[in-house]
Amino acid sequence: MATIVLKRTGQKMPLVGFGLWKVTRSTCADTVYNAIKAGYRLFDGAGDYGNEKEAGEGVRRALADGLVKREDLFITSKLWNTFHAREHVKSLAKMQLGLWGIDYFDLFLVHFPVSLKYVDPSHRYPPEWFGDDGKTVNLQNTPMQETWEAMEGLVDDGLAKNIGLSNCQGSLILDVFKYAKYEPQVLQVELHPYLTQEALVTLSKNLGIAVTAYSSFGPQSYLELGMGKNVASLLGSEGVASIASKYKKTPAQVLLRWATQRGIAVIPKSNNHDRLVANLQCNSFDLTEAEIKQLSDLNINLRLNDPGEIDVRMSIFA
Amino acid sequence: MATIVLKRTGQKMPLVGFGLWKVTRSTCADTVYNAIKAGYRLFDGAGDYGNEKEAGEGVRRALADGLVKREDLFITSKLWNTFHAREHVKSLAKMQLGLWGIDYFDLFLVHFPVSLKYVDPSHRYPPEWFGDDGKTVNLQNTPMQETWEAMEGLVDDGLAKNIGLSNCQGSLILDVFKYAKYEPQVLQVELHPYLTQEALVTLSKNLGIAVTAYSSFGPQSYLELGMGKNVASLLGSEGVASIASKYKKTPAQVLLRWATQRGIAVIPKSNNHDRLVANLQCNSFDLTEAEIKQLSDLNINLRLNDPGEIDVRMSIFA
Repeated sequence: MATIVLKRTGQKMPLVGFGLWKVTRSTCADTVYNAIKAGYRLFDGAGDYGNEKEAGEGVRRALADGLVKREDLFITSKLWNTFHAREHVKSLAKMQLGLWGIDYFDLFLVHFPVSLKYVDPSHRYPPEWFGDDGKTVNLQNTPMQETWEAMEGLVDDGLAKNIGLSNCQGSLILDVFKYAKYEPQVLQVELHPYLTQEALVTLSKNLGIAVTAYSSFGPQSYLELGMGKNVASLLGSEGVASIASKYKKTPAQVLLRWATQRGIAVIPKSNNHDRLVANLQCNSFDLTEAEIKQLSDLNINLRLNDPGEIDVRMSIFA
Repeated sequence: MATIVLKRTGQKMPLVGFGLWKVTRSTCADTVYNAIKAGYRLFDGAGDYGNEKEAGEGVRRALADGLVKREDLFITSKLWNTFHAREHVKSLAKMQLGLWGIDYFDLFLVHFPVSLKYVDPSHRYPPEWFGDDGKTVNLQNTPMQETWEAMEGLVDDGLAKNIGLSNCQGSLILDVFKYAKYEPQVLQVELHPYLTQEALVTLSKNLGIAVTAYSSFGPQSYLELGMGKNVASLLGSEGVASIASKYKKTPAQVLLRWATQRGIAVIPKSNNHDRLVANLQCNSFDLTEAEIKQLSDLNINLRLNDPGEIDVRMSIFA
């Protein structure tokens, strides 16, 4: 299985993992169990996805059935925006570990560089972007440094083996590097041929940060949220289709290989068993440099996941 | 004279100022004196421009001749990258004030969110991007928070009336707002129809930050540096020319008005007296909404000033 070696710990992170965003709670345990059976070893979760308990059930069932051992798995989760304050990071990480039913995360990420007012999990969880009225965004002035120091505490306490960032721009990452005791080891960002982010990838490689791409299929992931409809499909585009047909691969495999061939990890999700297996096998062929460039040339800086569209004060990509 | 009212102090910042970047040292005093005579009140300098002493001579001559009073002028300068450490911010600001021969800056900006190793000004000044070998970039881990707190000290000490940022992305600005005692009041960034930065402008307005556009003429400013040659001229473009001819204005005035009409300050530089006067009069007409959009539609996210091109570890726009 292709992996990326993480810098500080030397731990190997699978290049292809399973993303838990939008995996329905009711089927999540089975989905995770079956994905493990199919060969997936990395699961990318988050407090915000609302299915950590169910994902954990799938994991525990697989462990109990002897499909894998805990150390064979690489489990990622993320700190939600409402828990950025020093005093909440650890309690939330512990709560999330409890939901999963595991002792440590292989990787724990700051989900967004956005700090929102605390919402007691016993009251509402996951709290998402809005306050109790369902429409107000309640910002909170917790600087990234405070959050990052608390994230480092998770490493010291053995609750997270590796820590990293998600949805961050270059200048903020560089600032974190200036005060970090433990540098961010992974950066997870939206990345697909419509949003290639070359400069961010180059910077990350230079800093020794492994990059994980999310939304590898572009607008596809957003259709069920009622977004991305006015953009031409990536999966269905002629360029992707012709490369797929040349190699007798699926368009999804082509889009994933476009990333993994350059050492960028991917975390596709699928509810369909055949596609799930196919995604995992995306490293079974190589694109030519010209084909990679052909796909990269589709770039239109199209960002589908931007909290600035929810509230301008969260314009973290401006 | 059109101005922007700065949030914390209520001070009025002229919407059109004179930029001192690349103003030759030998002619700088005369240039500044003549610009004051022509009606300019804002001068945008920086330690890095290497002409603060000469600019100050021009200012002092104008004051001595009774052309203006100090309080009629708005003098901006910037902290260079080698002076980001707490202990250097104040001494450099004082040294720069000494060069200008004035007691306070109306505005002092962090020039770049890049921290480089200290270079003693008595040894080499301005030190620019490289170490003594002329090719090595010596990074230094001074977080923005340390620098910003020292910048706030300049306000407390009366050395700067207003403080702000330059060349910063949204996420870093938002992080500064989380710990700032005095919020950044001005953001100066590259901004022209090839790099429209709508999201950054919208965020800044929402945060109460005045935006100053630099390089309003796009590639033009970079030709003398041997850059921007492979990009079509903005000043010479047909779209700009046809709007200019409709209003009987210069292409430069059209490009400046494109910014100022939306409340964005500009700081053009010219060595030519007629152009210098024309630039100052750029607010003498209004573009239609359609014309503003037509110019904004030229956007190609073309960034001409990017330290990431000098050294990938300075990819502050990634």
